Amino acid sequence: MKVHTLGGYEEVGRNMTAVEVQNQTVIFDMGFEMEEVINADGEVNEMTTNDALETGAIPLDEQIMDKDVKAIVIGHGHLDHVGAIPKLAGAYDAPILCTPYTKRVIQGILEDDRKNIKNDVIAVEKGDEYAINDDLTLEFMHVNHSIPQATLSLLDTPEGKVVYGNDMKIDFSPVIEETTDIERLKEAGSNNVKLMIPGTTRVSSPGRARSEESVEVELRGVLNSCYEAGGAVIVTTFSSQISRLNSLLRANDGRRKVAFVGRSLKEYTEAAADLGLIDLSDVEVVSYFDEVEQLMNRVDNEKEEWLVVATGNQGEPGAQLDKLASGTYPFELSKDDHVIFSSRTIPTPLTEANRYSLEKKLKEKGVRLYMDVHTTGHAHKEDHRDFIRYLDPENIVPSHGTIQKLGDYVELAREEGYSLEENVFIGENGRTIEIG
Amino acid sequence: MKVHTLGGYEEVGRNMTAVEVQNQTVIFDMGFEMEEVINADGEVNEMTTNDALETGAIPLDEQIMDKDVKAIVIGHGHLDHVGAIPKLAGAYDAPILCTPYTKRVIQGILEDDRKNIKNDVIAVEKGDEYAINDDLTLEFMHVNHSIPQATLSLLDTPEGKVVYGNDMKIDFSPVIEETTDIERLKEAGSNNVKLMIPGTTRVSSPGRARSEESVEVELRGVLNSCYEAGGAVIVTTFSSQISRLNSLLRANDGRRKVAFVGRSLKEYTEAAADLGLIDLSDVEVVSYFDEVEQLMNRVDNEKEEWLVVATGNQGEPGAQLDKLASGTYPFELSKDDHVIFSSRTIPTPLTEANRYSLEKKLKEKGVRLYMDVHTTGHAHKEDHRDFIRYLDPENIVPSHGTIQKLGDYVELAREEGYSLEENVFIGENGRTIEIG
Amino acid sequence: MKVHTLGGYEEVGRNMTAVEVQNQTVIFDMGFEMEEVINADGEVNEMTTNDALETGAIPLDEQIMDKDVKAIVIGHGHLDHVGAIPKLAGAYDAPILCTPYTKRVIQGILEDDRKNIKNDVIAVEKGDEYAINDDLTLEFMHVNHSIPQATLSLLDTPEGKVVYGNDMKIDFSPVIEETTDIERLKEAGSNNVKLMIPGTTRVSSPGRARSEESVEVELRGVLNSCYEAGGAVIVTTFSSQISRLNSLLRANDGRRKVAFVGRSLKEYTEAAADLGLIDLSDVEVVSYFDEVEQLMNRVDNEKEEWLVVATGNQGEPGAQLDKLASGTYPFELSKDDHVIFSSRTIPTPLTEANRYSLEKKLKEKGVRLYMDVHTTGHAHKEDHRDFIRYLDPENIVPSHGTIQKLGDYVELAREEGYSLEENVFIGENGRTIEIG
Amino acid sequence: MKVHTLGGYEEVGRNMTAVEVQNQTVIFDMGFEMEEVINADGEVNEMTTNDALETGAIPLDEQIMDKDVKAIVIGHGHLDHVGAIPKLAGAYDAPILCTPYTKRVIQGILEDDRKNIKNDVIAVEKGDEYAINDDLTLEFMHVNHSIPQATLSLLDTPEGKVVYGNDMKIDFSPVIEETTDIERLKEAGSNNVKLMIPGTTRVSSPGRARSEESVEVELRGVLNSCYEAGGAVIVTTFSSQISRLNSLLRANDGRRKVAFVGRSLKEYTEAAADLGLIDLSDVEVVSYFDEVEQLMNRVDNEKEEWLVVATGNQGEPGAQLDKLASGTYPFELSKDDHVIFSSRTIPTPLTEANRYSLEKKLKEKGVRLYMDVHTTGHAHKEDHRDFIRYLDPENIVPSHGTIQKLGDYVELAREEGYSLEENVFIGENGRTIEIG
Repeated sequence: MKVHTLGGYEEVGRNMTAVEVQNQTVIFDMGFEMEEVINADGEVNEMTTNDALETGAIPLDEQIMDKDVKAIVIGHGHLDHVGAIPKLAGAYDAPILCTPYTKRVIQGILEDDRKNIKNDVIAVEKGDEYAINDDLTLEFMHVNHSIPQATLSLLDTPEGKVVYGNDMKIDFSPVIEETTDIERLKEAGSNNVKLMIPGTTRVSSPGRARSEESVEVELRGVLNSCYEAGGAVIVTTFSSQISRLNSLLRANDGRRKVAFVGRSLKEYTEAAADLGLIDLSDVEVVSYFDEVEQLMNRVDNEKEEWLVVATGNQGEPGAQLDKLASGTYPFELSKDDHVIFSSRTIPTPLTEANRYSLEKKLKEKGVRLYMDVHTTGHAHKEDHRDFIRYLDPENIVPSHGTIQKLGDYVELAREEGYSLEENVFIGENGRTIEIG
Repeated sequence: MKVHTLGGYEEVGRNMTAVEVQNQTVIFDMGFEMEEVINADGEVNEMTTNDALETGAIPLDEQIMDKDVKAIVIGHGHLDHVGAIPKLAGAYDAPILCTPYTKRVIQGILEDDRKNIKNDVIAVEKGDEYAINDDLTLEFMHVNHSIPQATLSLLDTPEGKVVYGNDMKIDFSPVIEETTDIERLKEAGSNNVKLMIPGTTRVSSPGRARSEESVEVELRGVLNSCYEAGGAVIVTTFSSQISRLNSLLRANDGRRKVAFVGRSLKEYTEAAADLGLIDLSDVEVVSYFDEVEQLMNRVDNEKEEWLVVATGNQGEPGAQLDKLASGTYPFELSKDDHVIFSSRTIPTPLTEANRYSLEKKLKEKGVRLYMDVHTTGHAHKEDHRDFIRYLDPENIVPSHGTIQKLGDYVELAREEGYSLEENVFIGENGRTIEIG
Repeated sequence: MKVHTLGGYEEVGRNMTAVEVQNQTVIFDMGFEMEEVINADGEVNEMTTNDALETGAIPLDEQIMDKDVKAIVIGHGHLDHVGAIPKLAGAYDAPILCTPYTKRVIQGILEDDRKNIKNDVIAVEKGDEYAINDDLTLEFMHVNHSIPQATLSLLDTPEGKVVYGNDMKIDFSPVIEETTDIERLKEAGSNNVKLMIPGTTRVSSPGRARSEESVEVELRGVLNSCYEAGGAVIVTTFSSQISRLNSLLRANDGRRKVAFVGRSLKEYTEAAADLGLIDLSDVEVVSYFDEVEQLMNRVDNEKEEWLVVATGNQGEPGAQLDKLASGTYPFELSKDDHVIFSSRTIPTPLTEANRYSLEKKLKEKGVRLYMDVHTTGHAHKEDHRDFIRYLDPENIVPSHGTIQKLGDYVELAREEGYSLEENVFIGENGRTIEIG
Repeated sequence: MKVHTLGGYEEVGRNMTAVEVQNQTVIFDMGFEMEEVINADGEVNEMTTNDALETGAIPLDEQIMDKDVKAIVIGHGHLDHVGAIPKLAGAYDAPILCTPYTKRVIQGILEDDRKNIKNDVIAVEKGDEYAINDDLTLEFMHVNHSIPQATLSLLDTPEGKVVYGNDMKIDFSPVIEETTDIERLKEAGSNNVKLMIPGTTRVSSPGRARSEESVEVELRGVLNSCYEAGGAVIVTTFSSQISRLNSLLRANDGRRKVAFVGRSLKEYTEAAADLGLIDLSDVEVVSYFDEVEQLMNRVDNEKEEWLVVATGNQGEPGAQLDKLASGTYPFELSKDDHVIFSSRTIPTPLTEANRYSLEKKLKEKGVRLYMDVHTTGHAHKEDHRDFIRYLDPENIVPSHGTIQKLGDYVELAREEGYSLEENVFIGENGRTIEIG
C-alpha cells in the first residue's frame, strides 16, 4: 500500500491524499489553500489551473496523474477539502463520492466555476456500503465537525482497511445530528485497520473540543444580555456552520425576527434546508444588494425587533458585516447596538488586519462587541487519543498541517506506542510512503 | 465624601476601601494578598499583624485608624476580601456586616486564627435594609460571582448613595441562585448614585463573562467522554465555587459515586449544605489523612464507579491532587485515568511552576488531562458597561487591580462619558480621594 | 502653573502639551497620530484641519485656543511631534523654536503642505539660552534619540523650571553626536525643577536601551556574513535615523558602492549632510522613478558591488523595498540575495499585515532575510530612573502613551517616592492639571 | 551507513548520536537532560545510571551496547553534551576524543562523580587529523559557540565524510578565538560530505545570531551607566561563557576591582586560564563560604570599587546571586545597587519561577535590574543555511530538539532542495536511520 501525500502536509489547507493499493488509486479530498484563493464573500478567485498550481493554491497532483484512479472521496464540504475539484478532478476518469450535503456544496462550486468537468458526483448516505469496484468498498462513518454530514471515510481494500478523516471531533451534545458514531468506530477498529489518516489541526490543544450545545448556552446568555440592554443585535458566523445557525434560532426562541444576510449564508443554509437540517420558514434570507438595502432599512426603524445574521466574521472587506459597519446601507449603528462574533479570528496577519479594521469602524460608532462565542470543529488531544484507541490502526499518517503540527500528532502517537517511520509517518507534499 | 483607597489599588488582592461621610466611616472588605499568605491547602500562613503589614500581605490601614468607623461591610467570602479580618478588624469598634454564607466563611477563618476579635459578625439577608445608625443604611443587592451570596453593597449616606461591588458578573444562566438583580440595580440607579466602586479584574476582556450553565454543559460533555472511555475520573476546582460543584453533581447524574476530598472542600461545602446551597447526602466528604487513605483505597479497586473531586487545582504542593499524583495514598493513576481541571491557572510564575510540576507527574503516569473547563466570576467589558448604565453613578473609583487595570476601567468609563479626576478616579494604596 | 495635556495622553502619537504660567502659555510639540495620516513613503495624507481633528489625527487644542501662547517648542523632528504644525500652528501668534535639524524637517513638511503659516521657525542651538520674553527662557539640553538634534527642553518660568522631554534615551556609545549631557541634567536638577514631562514609550522595558554602537557592530557582522556568502545586499531602516545610516557606511567601509533609494531617505539625509551629520559624497542618492530604475538596472548587473539602502522597512505598499520585491524595476531578487531590516516592525495589525505581505513576496523569491538589527531610541526603565534622579523634579506628568503606559511610569515614580495626584499625575487628552 | 539517534531527538538536552559504518561505530556526545539532573550551583545530582536512564536524565543507549564502538567524540564541554559520560562511557571500550578545554571539563565531571571509568580522554587540537584506526579519521573543525574550543567534528569513513556539529554559530566578531573556519568548511564541502548532523536550537529564529562583540559593547554601555550612577555592581552569566567574562574584564577596563564568586565560575575560569583563554591575574576568584563571606564584607564597605561576577543567573536557589539577594553574607543590597543578568532565562516554568523569586527579592530591596545583556551561541536560520551551503552534505539528520524543532530544520532544508526521508531525516530517540 502506498500513500501519496499531495497537499496539506506543509500547510493548513489544500488537502489531498491518494492511497494506492495493487495499482488502484483512491483520492481523498481536493482542497484549496484558503489564503491564496478566497475573497471576501466566500467566492473562489478566478485563476487557471496552472496559475493555481504555481501559486500553491491547489495541490500538486502530478505524481498520480498516470495512476489508475478509481474514485475521488470527499470527506466534507469545506473549501480546503473541495475547493480544488473544479481545477483538478476533470483530469481523472473517476466519480466523486460524498454525502448529500457535500454534494450540494460541490454542485454550487462547479456552477460558480462554469467548468464542464465530467466526473459523476455521487451522494452516498452515511452507513451505506458503496462498492467502488470488486476490490474497493467505501463507507462514510458519522463524525462531528463544523459543517453538516462530515465523515470519516472507511475504505476497504485487498490490503486492509483505510480510514481517512481529516477534520472531525467527538461532540457529546451536538446541536444537529448525532454524536460521532463511537460504536461503529470500535467495530471498525476491531477488524484490523491497516492505516488511519487523521487531521492534526488542534492535536496540541489539551483535553476535549467543547460541544456545540455549550456554545448555544453561551450564545443564549449573550443574546439575553443584549435583549435586556436593548438596541440592534447583529451576529456573524461561518456560513457553513448550520448547527450554530440552528443554535441561534433556538436561543432567539422567536423573540426577534431573524434575517440571514449574504450570499454564502443563503447558499449554505438553503442547501441545508432542502435536506431538513435547518428550518428557514421564519427567516428572511437576503443576498442581492437591493434586497439587503431594503431589509436593513426596515431594521434601522425596528432595531429592537430584529436579529440579523451577516457574513463577514473574518472582517473580509466587502462582506456584509463590513458593509453594515461602513454605512453602505440605510442603517446606522450606534452605541446601543451589539455585534456578536460567533467565530474565531483565523490567526494570520492578513485576517487580523481585516478584523482590526472592521472592529475599528465598529468601535468608532460605539458598537458593543462580543468575541469568540465559538468552539472548534476539530478534535483536541484527548479526542484524537480516543480515535486512535477506538480505531486501533496499524499505521498512521497524520495530515492537514505544517510539519510542526504533524510532529505534534507524532508526539501523541508515541504516547500510544507508535514509532516514527515504523508505523507513524510524517508526510511532505509530494512524498510517497510505503506501508509495509 | 472621602474615599480612602487602602488596599487592592496596586495589585490583585488585599482589598480594602473606606468611605468617609461627615466624619463617619464605613470600611468595605479586609482582604489578603494571596501570593504572600496562602499555602497549599487554603490555609492562612501564620504571621503577626505587623509582619503581615510589612510584607504587604494585608492592607495598610493606618490612615483610617483614628476615624470613627461605624461598620465593616464584607461583599463576599473570598480570602482577598475577608482574609485580613483576623489581623485588622479588632482595631475597630464596629460590627462586620455580610451575608449568611460569608458569615460562615468568616467564622471559619476566625476559628483558624484562634484570635479573639470582638467585632460582632452580623448576617444580613440580601434585599433587607440594615440601619447601621440613623445616618447610614446598608442593603446587599444580589449579583453573581463564583462563591455563594456575593453582593453589591448599597450604602445610603447623608451625601448620597455609595455602591461597592468589587467582584461580580451578570450570569443569565447561573447554576444556583438567580441572575444578578438587574431590576434592583436600575431602580437604585434611578435614585442618584453618588459613587460606584467596581472591581476591574476582567474589564479588558471583551464581551460577556460566560455563564456557569455553559460550563456545566461542557463539563457534562467531558464527563461523558471520560465515562465512555473508562478509567478513574478526578476533578479539581476551587472549593468555594459551590455552583460548579452542583454542576458536577448534575453532570454526573448519579452515574458514579461522588467523593469530595480535602479540608477546604469540606469546609466550604458543609457551610453551603447548611444553607441549602448544595445537597451532600450522596457525597462522601473526607478530609483527614486516614479517611482519604481509606477512600482512595476503595476507589483504586472500583475506578469506574467513582467521581472524585479533590483540592489542589493550582498544583499546590501538598494539596490532595498533588498527593494523588505523588502516590501518597494506596491509589495508582494510570494511562486510562482522567484528571479534569475545572479551573484556570492563576498566571503567576510560582503557580505556573506548581502546575507544571503537577502536570509532569500526571503525564509521566500517562494520565489524560483536561484543562480550563471553567469560566470567570468577573464581569467582562460589556457586563461592566451594563453596571455603569444601570447604576448611572455620578462618580466612579475603580478598584481591585494594578494601575494598568484601573486604567483599563478608565478607558471604558471614558467611552461612557466620564473624565479622569473629574468623575472617574485612579486610586493608589493610601490615597484619599475627595468626591465633590 | 497649569499643564494642559492635549494630545498623546491616550495613545502613542499626536503629542501636544501646553504649560501655562501666570497667563502665559508655551506649547510643547504638535504631532500627528501616525496610523491615521502617514502613507507609504512618509508623506502626510492630505486632509483639512477639521477632518484631521475629527478623525483623531491631530491633537484637540480647543481648550488653549484663547490662551496667550508665547512660543511653540518642538523637541525633535519626528512626525508624531511636528506633523500637526501645518494644521495647528497657524492659529497661534507665536514662533516655533527648535534645533537646526528639526527646523529643516519642519520646513520640508511646510513645503509639502503648501500652507502659508506665518509663524517664524527659529533655530536654537543646544546649550544656548533663548529668551522668549522677560519671563520665559528656553534652553535645549542635549539628549540621545533616534533622529539628530533631539532635545530635552528646559523652560525657565516665574514659577520654576519645566523640563519637557518626550522621547529620549541615554546612549553611552552613540554613533554621531555625544552622550546625553548628564552633567547639564544634574546641574539643572540641583536648581529646583518644578515639573518634568517625560515620555513613557519604553518605561516598562527593564534595564537600559541598547546603544547605537552595539547595533553598528551587529550590523557589521551581518554585512560581513552577507558579503562572505555573496549576492545583492539591501538594507532598510528609518529615513530619519541618521546615526544608523552612518553606521551602515562605516560597517561597509568602502567595500561596496552605496546607494540610498527613496524620497524620504533623500530628504532626511540631505538635510543631515548640510549640517555635517553625514557624508554623502560617496553615496548615490536617488528618488525619482527614472533614477531608481536606472540605478537598479546597474545593481542587477553588479549585484556584489552594491549596498542598497531603501525606504519601506514597515512593508509600506508602494515604498521602495516593496517595489524592489514586486519587480517594479529591472532588478530581480533571487535566493542568493539578502534583505536586512535595520528596524523593528511597529506592532499594529495593519503594519504587521504589510510586513507579512512584503516578506511573503521576498520569501517566494528565496531572498535571505535579517530582522530587527535595531535598537530603540527610547529610554528603558533604568534610563528613566536616572532622568528622575538627575533632574529631581518636584512634579511629574508622564506623557506619550495610553493610560496603561502612563501607569507604568507612575509605578516607576512610586519607587522613587512620588504619589499619584500629589506629585505624579496621569493626563488625559483635554485634562488641565494644576501644579501646586 | 546507519545513524542511531539515541538522545536529544525528542527534547533539548541529553545529546547522543551514533554513526555505524561497516560494523564500526562512533558515538557523538553523551549529555544530560538539564532539567532532570542539575541543581543550583551547576552540580550533577547524585543518581545511579539506572535511575538516570529511567527518569530520562540520560540517553537510552541499549541499542548500541553490543556494537563495536571505536571512539566517543565530544563536540564541546556543555553538560548536555558531556554530562552522561560518567554514567555511560564506561560501558564502551573506546577512547573519548575532544579538544583540550573540553578535556578539562570532562576531567572535572569525572572527579565530581568519583567514578572509575577507564576510557582514555584524549585531547585533539583543532585542525589536526586524528586516526582512530585505519578506517576512521577525525578532525575537529573550528566553530563559534558559547564555550571555548567548540567544534564541528569531521569524521572520515570508508563510506564518506560525516560532519557532526550539534551546537555552533558563525560569529564575525567573537571576543576570544577566531571566526568559524569558513574556508575549512568550504574545503570539506567540496569533498563529498555524505552526512551532516546539525543542531536545531535556533533554526526558527530569522537572520544571524548576534556577535559577542556586539554584546560586549552593550555591556560596556550598561557598566558605564551604572558606574555613572554609582552603587554596587553585580553581574551574573553562564560560568562556561569565557568570552563573556573576557568582555566584562575589557568593559570594566580596570576601573573597578573584579571578583568571580562561585564554584562553577572558579572551575570553568581556572581551566580557561590554564589554557590562556582568560587572564585571572587581576581577578579575585572565590568559592568557599568563608572566602565569599570575607570578600562580600569588603565589597559592602567599598561598593563603588568592585565589580562582582556571581553564579546563579537562572535564579537557582542557593547559587551565589540568590545568597547575595537573601542576605546570607554581611553584604546589604540597596536601591543604588545594580544587578546585571548577562544571560537569558531558560523558558521553562521551573526556571521562570526561580527567576521570579530571585527578582522579587532584589526588587524588594530596590535593586536596579538589567536583563538579557546577552546573545545566543546557536546558529540562526541564515547561519544554518550557510552551514548547508558551505558543507553541501548529501544527507542531513537534524538533532538536538523536539520533533517540532527538527521540523523547523526540515523546512529550511526543503528551501535548500532536500526532501523528507529522502535526504533529510527526522530522528526519534531510539530510531536507526539507514543512509543510502
